[in-house]
Amino acid sequence: MRPLKRLIPLDEALRLVLDRARPIRASEKIDILEADGRVAAQDVVSDISVPPFSRSAMDGYAVRAKDTFGASKMKPLTFAKTERIYAGSVPKKLVSRGACSEIATGAMLPKGADAVVMVEDTELDGDNVLVYEAVHPGQNVSKKGEDITPGTTVVAKGEVLNPSKIGALAAVGRSKVSVYKRPLVAIVPTGDEIAELEKPLRPGQVYNINSYTLGTVVRANGGQARIMSVVKDTVKDLAKAIAQNDDCDMIVFSGGSSVGERDVILDVLEESGDIVFHGIAVKPGKPTIFGTVKDQLVLGMPGYPTACLSNAYILLAPALRRMSHLPERATSVTEARMSRRIVSTTGRTQFLTVRLEDGKAVPAFKESGAITSMAFADGYIIIPHDVDLVEKDERVLVHLL
Amino acid sequence: MRPLKRLIPLDEALRLVLDRARPIRASEKIDILEADGRVAAQDVVSDISVPPFSRSAMDGYAVRAKDTFGASKMKPLTFAKTERIYAGSVPKKLVSRGACSEIATGAMLPKGADAVVMVEDTELDGDNVLVYEAVHPGQNVSKKGEDITPGTTVVAKGEVLNPSKIGALAAVGRSKVSVYKRPLVAIVPTGDEIAELEKPLRPGQVYNINSYTLGTVVRANGGQARIMSVVKDTVKDLAKAIAQNDDCDMIVFSGGSSVGERDVILDVLEESGDIVFHGIAVKPGKPTIFGTVKDQLVLGMPGYPTACLSNAYILLAPALRRMSHLPERATSVTEARMSRRIVSTTGRTQFLTVRLEDGKAVPAFKESGAITSMAFADGYIIIPHDVDLVEKDERVLVHLL
Repeated sequence: MRPLKRLIPLDEALRLVLDRARPIRASEKIDILEADGRVAAQDVVSDISVPPFSRSAMDGYAVRAKDTFGASKMKPLTFAKTERIYAGSVPKKLVSRGACSEIATGAMLPKGADAVVMVEDTELDGDNVLVYEAVHPGQNVSKKGEDITPGTTVVAKGEVLNPSKIGALAAVGRSKVSVYKRPLVAIVPTGDEIAELEKPLRPGQVYNINSYTLGTVVRANGGQARIMSVVKDTVKDLAKAIAQNDDCDMIVFSGGSSVGERDVILDVLEESGDIVFHGIAVKPGKPTIFGTVKDQLVLGMPGYPTACLSNAYILLAPALRRMSHLPERATSVTEARMSRRIVSTTGRTQFLTVRLEDGKAVPAFKESGAITSMAFADGYIIIPHDVDLVEKDERVLVHLL
Repeated sequence: MRPLKRLIPLDEALRLVLDRARPIRASEKIDILEADGRVAAQDVVSDISVPPFSRSAMDGYAVRAKDTFGASKMKPLTFAKTERIYAGSVPKKLVSRGACSEIATGAMLPKGADAVVMVEDTELDGDNVLVYEAVHPGQNVSKKGEDITPGTTVVAKGEVLNPSKIGALAAVGRSKVSVYKRPLVAIVPTGDEIAELEKPLRPGQVYNINSYTLGTVVRANGGQARIMSVVKDTVKDLAKAIAQNDDCDMIVFSGGSSVGERDVILDVLEESGDIVFHGIAVKPGKPTIFGTVKDQLVLGMPGYPTACLSNAYILLAPALRRMSHLPERATSVTEARMSRRIVSTTGRTQFLTVRLEDGKAVPAFKESGAITSMAFADGYIIIPHDVDLVEKDERVLVHLL
């Protein structure tokens, strides 16, 4: 057995991981409808004006604004109606002095007109229109290029796409967008005790939990997950798993990163890559290994599900977000008061799961193997390594799960 | 032309929509790896214990705890090593008085033993093990069923699945989970002026923006989007679009909901369904129509992209979340100070897009057609209908986009 010797602080572990998590350079073209949450890999520059022509922003009557000056609720002015302009059609007639064209929202403004009187401020009178309100030049008109002019960058490289940015791409006619590829992460469960789901357990076996929690965290943080079958804890099998996944940006093993004789990830890393650290001053999740094989990041996560998942939140997710060009995770947090005193004399950063009950944070932690300590929790608090005690009723920040 | 008569307040509009947005009853079985963010449609009850056997939580030596009493750093006690127990294997030997079995994390606790001494607190001495620290019964042991007992509900109906709940499903061996189906939403752009993307614009045409912004909002809020081609603004064509999508839970039209003569959605609803409201006291987004055709909800959104998208955020998204059994959207918000005085004398609720610059909220609003007023914004503030003025430097809550 190889005991852990020097535990490094969580901050340092995170820094070491982030230093090696290089933003993906490769890009791919995808449909804009699939692009929500993805990151633009190029500036998108418009080659058109939006709107492509001056158009009415209201249903009403296109006029020369100055002809309306003096119109009021008590003293309407009379205009001669010349044509009706639908959205999508092209006006045929010039709007001359004292004339107007009926115009729909979004329809092209006719020549001669420089404003639109809202229908609500008018009244039909045979072929004439009574105008009850003066408009100023440009009123109720969207000018050509008012929204976007040719040469405008509608989406900049590095921006995270959302509904409105996707709308801006559509506005300039683009149905595809170039985005950074998602980092590909192989997830490799190790250990003879790990059984695949849906099969009966043999004595000494437990179901594979970590592939599913890790896979979900990977996907939720910009990555693509490749879920591998369970692998034996031997140098040969682990080396083979690395070789099989040499197209991945990251390989995450779960299990086999503790201090047992069979913890062979260290041997594999020593042989074919570099060990960056082994052992973090965090509870749970101490025996995590991090290293590299060529350009690939290799994480050896503890086999215990909660330890594995909490380290996925605090190390794997930030690394993936950096690789994916995504901003730091906007975790939802809420404030609560601790329901009871918590003693944390471990000298390690503690990741304490809690339930929220009547504004109180109630510890939900059982032991690092208990998936229910997270599944039945609402969030977690982080107790820094140099804090020994959280008092009852002390305010804590709960990161929601 | 049919002017809008009575505008209803935004709160009332939202209530009317939510009242008719019934949670989906149909469910489907999906892979747990696809289940993040979905809502469980059934309780999932474990039929096994987790762990399925008492196991070691540490690498170390399984012992009878009472045999270690008195051990200390200065005065180690000596134990005879009997066997080595790997994770996934079954112990062969009983741990008797003064004996120990080497045991890996996750391995089955041997009969006779009731605790595990961590390897860090031991030293090998030939076939013997020196123990430097006493353990109490149960220490470093996860008891059978400690995490989950048979009959435990690991995921309850109505819960939103996340990595840890997916982990709990895996823990009890389930690779599939029953979740509520996602509401199916047909998105139908209307109007002769709307051109499909990537094609050259004819005079008077603009690109179809709303299908993409609406489609993205639908997907981000638990729905499935069915994007239809552009439809002409005629009673016949709109009625046909409704008939073609009678398998949908909701139909969202964009365009054609203003007051022009060609606004025929009202006619279609009058003929084959019910109009619930037409016109909301909100800026932008006033001319929105809401009604029903049989069990289907029908939303007629303004054609102007920002008006359409802001109404999608404030009406469509909450309706979809209710139909999807999702909690109200956890919008990220941040506080900022208004960069300048905003006058909002419309008597309508105002949806004002802003950029964040040095902690200031700078208005980004151009006019309701300008997609860049949202694409270049960081978020929006909501000015209630009865607030006329937001002062410079006043604190405002910015909903991040």
